[in-house]
Amino acid sequence: MGDITIALDAMGGDYGAKIVVPAAIAAVQQHAHVKIYLVGKQEVLAEHLSGVASEYKDRLIIHHASQTVAMDELPSSALRTKKDSSMRVAINLVKERKAQAVVSAGNTGALMATARFVLKTLPGIDRPALISELPTLVNRTRVLDLGANVDSYAEHLFQFAVMGSVLVAAEDNIDSPTVGLLNIGAEEIKGNEQVKHAAQLLTESNAVNYIGYVEGNELLKGKVDIIVCDGFIGNIALKTLEGSAKVLSRIIRETFQQTIFSRMIGLLSFSVLKRLRKRMDPAQYNGASLLGLNGIVIKSHGGANVLGFTAAINEAVVEAQKDVPNLIGERVSVLLQEGLLT
Amino acid sequence: MGDITIALDAMGGDYGAKIVVPAAIAAVQQHAHVKIYLVGKQEVLAEHLSGVASEYKDRLIIHHASQTVAMDELPSSALRTKKDSSMRVAINLVKERKAQAVVSAGNTGALMATARFVLKTLPGIDRPALISELPTLVNRTRVLDLGANVDSYAEHLFQFAVMGSVLVAAEDNIDSPTVGLLNIGAEEIKGNEQVKHAAQLLTESNAVNYIGYVEGNELLKGKVDIIVCDGFIGNIALKTLEGSAKVLSRIIRETFQQTIFSRMIGLLSFSVLKRLRKRMDPAQYNGASLLGLNGIVIKSHGGANVLGFTAAINEAVVEAQKDVPNLIGERVSVLLQEGLLT
Repeated sequence: MGDITIALDAMGGDYGAKIVVPAAIAAVQQHAHVKIYLVGKQEVLAEHLSGVASEYKDRLIIHHASQTVAMDELPSSALRTKKDSSMRVAINLVKERKAQAVVSAGNTGALMATARFVLKTLPGIDRPALISELPTLVNRTRVLDLGANVDSYAEHLFQFAVMGSVLVAAEDNIDSPTVGLLNIGAEEIKGNEQVKHAAQLLTESNAVNYIGYVEGNELLKGKVDIIVCDGFIGNIALKTLEGSAKVLSRIIRETFQQTIFSRMIGLLSFSVLKRLRKRMDPAQYNGASLLGLNGIVIKSHGGANVLGFTAAINEAVVEAQKDVPNLIGERVSVLLQEGLLT
Repeated sequence: MGDITIALDAMGGDYGAKIVVPAAIAAVQQHAHVKIYLVGKQEVLAEHLSGVASEYKDRLIIHHASQTVAMDELPSSALRTKKDSSMRVAINLVKERKAQAVVSAGNTGALMATARFVLKTLPGIDRPALISELPTLVNRTRVLDLGANVDSYAEHLFQFAVMGSVLVAAEDNIDSPTVGLLNIGAEEIKGNEQVKHAAQLLTESNAVNYIGYVEGNELLKGKVDIIVCDGFIGNIALKTLEGSAKVLSRIIRETFQQTIFSRMIGLLSFSVLKRLRKRMDPAQYNGASLLGLNGIVIKSHGGANVLGFTAAINEAVVEAQKDVPNLIGERVSVLLQEGLLT
């Protein structure tokens, strides 16, 4: 396993360097073969790095970038006016092959637009897709697309299925990961036109191990390795999950505070509730990958804490070790030759 | 407030008469002015009613229907071959004005297809939409469409917004309930074509109190009275919520069982956890309404228990008291005159 270099948008996200630098330090401590470019304002980053032991500092390289992309900035504006932003320069490092992957907690729209513009999609891939893991109880389930595209055609869903399969096969060492299409269960009208057509494409080819439709209530059951859907649907489903987890945590807290007796029980349950919170902690699932580009692009949640951003860096490390973009490129090139992609 | 008559598909759902008859008894006990037609097999229903006190029995009328619609039957087959099914005959009672509303826990696709075929949509309404309440912590939030339609046009979403507004205004006595469109937050590409166009239609007219976009994580926040979306999206979101509530309940249970200490805490927490379960109980939110038809059609969850089916009957009673189809008809007729509907 050779050395791996990851470029971090060190100014991105709700907290910028305050979160990114400690996460970078944690990552180089965890991975002896990983080197990190911290891209952003030299003086800010130098200050955050000041106390770090030199054995780690050698693998934490500050790469100056004078601008930052605001969280609410329009992607087109970022693309046009922020050519020296921490985000853009970090992506450039991947394009220049100085880093294998970029991780950013910054503006999602700007990251997707800039990454696509700078790195370009792989031949045979029309649109990159955002993939991430869901907090299932058993097994791992990834969902794509989580919001990189809307109004996807069946052909795009087919490409998402192929890309997701390659990623999961490589990361989890599964020969032929299962793929399901997210759909609704109303009998005859099962699915909209796009999903029905995608099901047909997946059934007719042997490009992936397609097992059929999956409904919304099955997202967390861990019955399928990869769930494919349009980005609009995937984003709504993911955000719905996030929202319901928050509301349920609040209900649990409130219920334990209702009476003096339940408050006492709550105090006694402290360790149990803490374990519960830990198990439901979204930080451990942080790090969505934008698949289909000439390079690895990982999107961290904007509000991620150090643990969360470290998880996103770890995702980048794993994908770099497996060289996922190259694997997708190879798979797609076979499918292009077979006429299954155009 | 005059007398209200509700027709129940007494053979529908996973449990049929075993659940429907006790729920009907509970409903006539709760509402002195409500009369119920129990539609289904005479002998089965008579047996289930045998022990009931005569003061209630007078308002529980068996209406024989020889057939039943299977839960997995194709809607087209039910429509064609089950003209004497409990579902169809119950819907017929609404068409014949012998009942104001029908409640069924049966096959969703068959119910929607049959209700639409028998009752027809109101003038100005192209497609009926399924609306239900979400388990928010504060206020009430309804979502439509939950799966009656897929591939909706912006004009349909506009109609859904109007129908939802009329229902909520009547049921909750709100002058001008707020309406949001379910959307994703990726800046520039915010929304798919359908949602962007619907936003334009809603903004340009004063037909409803439109307040803008709502994201998936805001579904349970209770910030808006009505959330409008395509049925594919709404169904995925609703099922995702159901699925996550189930998984989280399981995580809570498992966490309390992990160690001997936490098991003891679990025993002590019994009353608290019971309160928690009650608060999360989907039964209390059971009963989705198929809006836009010449008559009230309530869909109960197929697996609903007695409490859940009673909640669905109560929804039918409230809509009948307010005469919701008539209110929608009046509102739509004004919008047709104003040229806001065609």
